[in-house]
Amino acid sequence: MDFNKLALEKHLEWQGKFEISPKMELNSKVDLSIAYTPGVAAVCEEIAKDKKSVYKYTTKANTIAIVTDGSAILGLGDLGPEAALPVMEGKAVLFKKFGSVNAIPICLNTKNVAEIIQTVKLIAPGFGGINLEDISSPRCFEIENTLINELDIPVFHDDQHGTAIVVLAALINALRIVKKKKEDLKIIINGAGAAGIAITRLLIDFGFRDIILCDRKGVIHNDQPDLNWIKKEILKATNKHNFKGTLKDALVGADVFIGVSAPNTVTPEMVKEMNHNAIIFAMSNPMPEIMPNLALEAGARIIGTGRSDYPNQINNVLAFPGIFRGVLEANAPKITTEMKLQSAIAIAELVSDSELTEDYIIPKPFDERVASNIAEVIKKIARTNS
Amino acid sequence: MDFNKLALEKHLEWQGKFEISPKMELNSKVDLSIAYTPGVAAVCEEIAKDKKSVYKYTTKANTIAIVTDGSAILGLGDLGPEAALPVMEGKAVLFKKFGSVNAIPICLNTKNVAEIIQTVKLIAPGFGGINLEDISSPRCFEIENTLINELDIPVFHDDQHGTAIVVLAALINALRIVKKKKEDLKIIINGAGAAGIAITRLLIDFGFRDIILCDRKGVIHNDQPDLNWIKKEILKATNKHNFKGTLKDALVGADVFIGVSAPNTVTPEMVKEMNHNAIIFAMSNPMPEIMPNLALEAGARIIGTGRSDYPNQINNVLAFPGIFRGVLEANAPKITTEMKLQSAIAIAELVSDSELTEDYIIPKPFDERVASNIAEVIKKIARTNS
Repeated sequence: MDFNKLALEKHLEWQGKFEISPKMELNSKVDLSIAYTPGVAAVCEEIAKDKKSVYKYTTKANTIAIVTDGSAILGLGDLGPEAALPVMEGKAVLFKKFGSVNAIPICLNTKNVAEIIQTVKLIAPGFGGINLEDISSPRCFEIENTLINELDIPVFHDDQHGTAIVVLAALINALRIVKKKKEDLKIIINGAGAAGIAITRLLIDFGFRDIILCDRKGVIHNDQPDLNWIKKEILKATNKHNFKGTLKDALVGADVFIGVSAPNTVTPEMVKEMNHNAIIFAMSNPMPEIMPNLALEAGARIIGTGRSDYPNQINNVLAFPGIFRGVLEANAPKITTEMKLQSAIAIAELVSDSELTEDYIIPKPFDERVASNIAEVIKKIARTNS
Repeated sequence: MDFNKLALEKHLEWQGKFEISPKMELNSKVDLSIAYTPGVAAVCEEIAKDKKSVYKYTTKANTIAIVTDGSAILGLGDLGPEAALPVMEGKAVLFKKFGSVNAIPICLNTKNVAEIIQTVKLIAPGFGGINLEDISSPRCFEIENTLINELDIPVFHDDQHGTAIVVLAALINALRIVKKKKEDLKIIINGAGAAGIAITRLLIDFGFRDIILCDRKGVIHNDQPDLNWIKKEILKATNKHNFKGTLKDALVGADVFIGVSAPNTVTPEMVKEMNHNAIIFAMSNPMPEIMPNLALEAGARIIGTGRSDYPNQINNVLAFPGIFRGVLEANAPKITTEMKLQSAIAIAELVSDSELTEDYIIPKPFDERVASNIAEVIKKIARTNS
């Protein structure tokens, strides 16, 4: 099927993938007097008296902003804020469909970090959360960190944490099949952008010990003079023996390969050098780091990709709707590491022992249990924290 | 009916007056591949190639931001951005109901003019227009002027122009009844905030010659040392004989009183001193400058208020939905003076000679012809201009 052609046709027909729907009838003076003036004045005054009551009376309870600067749109790069809008709208309809969350695209006409931070802070009063999206690395880390610290609503960069949560969920279940222990596992992650860094961090938080991160130049190590600050920071907890070499060198004896990089960066020869029962998550999109059939022929045991036309689609739509559903219902001010870890476990647990196979390690994107399971876990953690 | 109590109850029940509705089914991998990845990438690349095509493919075609800083909420004053949200949501549902326009509340956590301007400029790429709302005077003028000049999408401060358009419409029809000529008319406007200034300007643009503007201190004149810049500017075209005195003094012999000020600022004695066939638009809300029955008893011929429980409700819901419906459909970059004048005429014309009476000079807010008539007029002007 030619998705490009179909997508262009349908987008032309839709002219916007969502619309605003009023929740009430507006057919009489009385309707207008309750939803608008004069009645609405009483609601304004209530909120002015008690600012927290804005959650009781308004869209802030269930509405987030999806904020981008268009600097890293899908795998397409920096196409600017207008070209980002179709993706943000797509995200908005997924948020509604899978999480019953209202999400509003905000496409910013700046790539200046301070301006992005300032703008998000200034528009925050009307939103219950901020989902950062398609902002290039390493700028995304500073933007997210600052906003998490300075805002009283949850802030979540989905390209980082959504991906990391779903990768962890898939890895947990892959280990149930290959029966290896997380402490013994050698993991190679290729791609040190937003997703690669966040996956690395979350795997470390979960208890994996031996992770080597690679970028276009090969293994990231301590003797490189030109590393950016985030790569330096991540080195404190990875590549403990300061191994140097190419991705190919690093993969020798590795148990897990996680790719968030570029098509065809892994060859069958490289897979053959990995440990037995190798797990490969090749998530470059739409063309993975290695095609599943090639990896299987080369001896890998479990393959996941970002694609819907192969088994084990590792897609962050499994994470973000439930995450925000949970924090909004809990009125939680932050999305904690514990919430991310438990969300991954909640996704993984939806595959029972009898269902679990090499071709089914993670629920399908349309599995409606996923978002509600995550939301329940998050609400439980929020209750414990408060 | 206790609208305050009802409004609080219903707002609690709604917890947000609108929601996001996806326009497509999302039930299969194919659905997802067209609305989101991988298909959406083709749409992004189209827009990156031709930025204007964002109007063909996205919500920008039919979505505006309703921007406020919460500094002048209804008649309640500066209650802050959170307390403004119920009003912005109310506006959003009116935009949808009467104009089929998607409008998104943006409540800003700043009252700094430069920061407001900058924020609106930065969020503009995703919106087809900006409706400024409940921003205090005279800051609103600088914010609107700058944004009109610097953005390529229409910017409209509804508290100014929505009100001015509907007042002009009502005045046009009131003159059809009293059969006075606009050139001979003495008009007194009380209230020199956003609405008062904009009404004055639009009436001048329409051809009224003799207007005196008053504020809390009485008639605004040239020998006052402490006038703000906007009052100084408006004096160039009003109060040509530099009349000095109170509102009471100014009303002697006046043909029209337009109040956008405060309750009970006009007494029956003052109405008695006006010219015969006096027209009174007492729009302070919810309590008008003078109650309609008192004004009628004192000899006025035609009374309009902002209230839905008296005849002749002068409500800007008659203007803003059609205005934006028109400029969005025309893809017009500005809302011109000609558009405002013709919109007022389009509203007035909906009252036929046989319908026109002292108690029916303006269509009802629920008259569905209003928005479409305005939109047609605006599209016609836009075509002529382009």
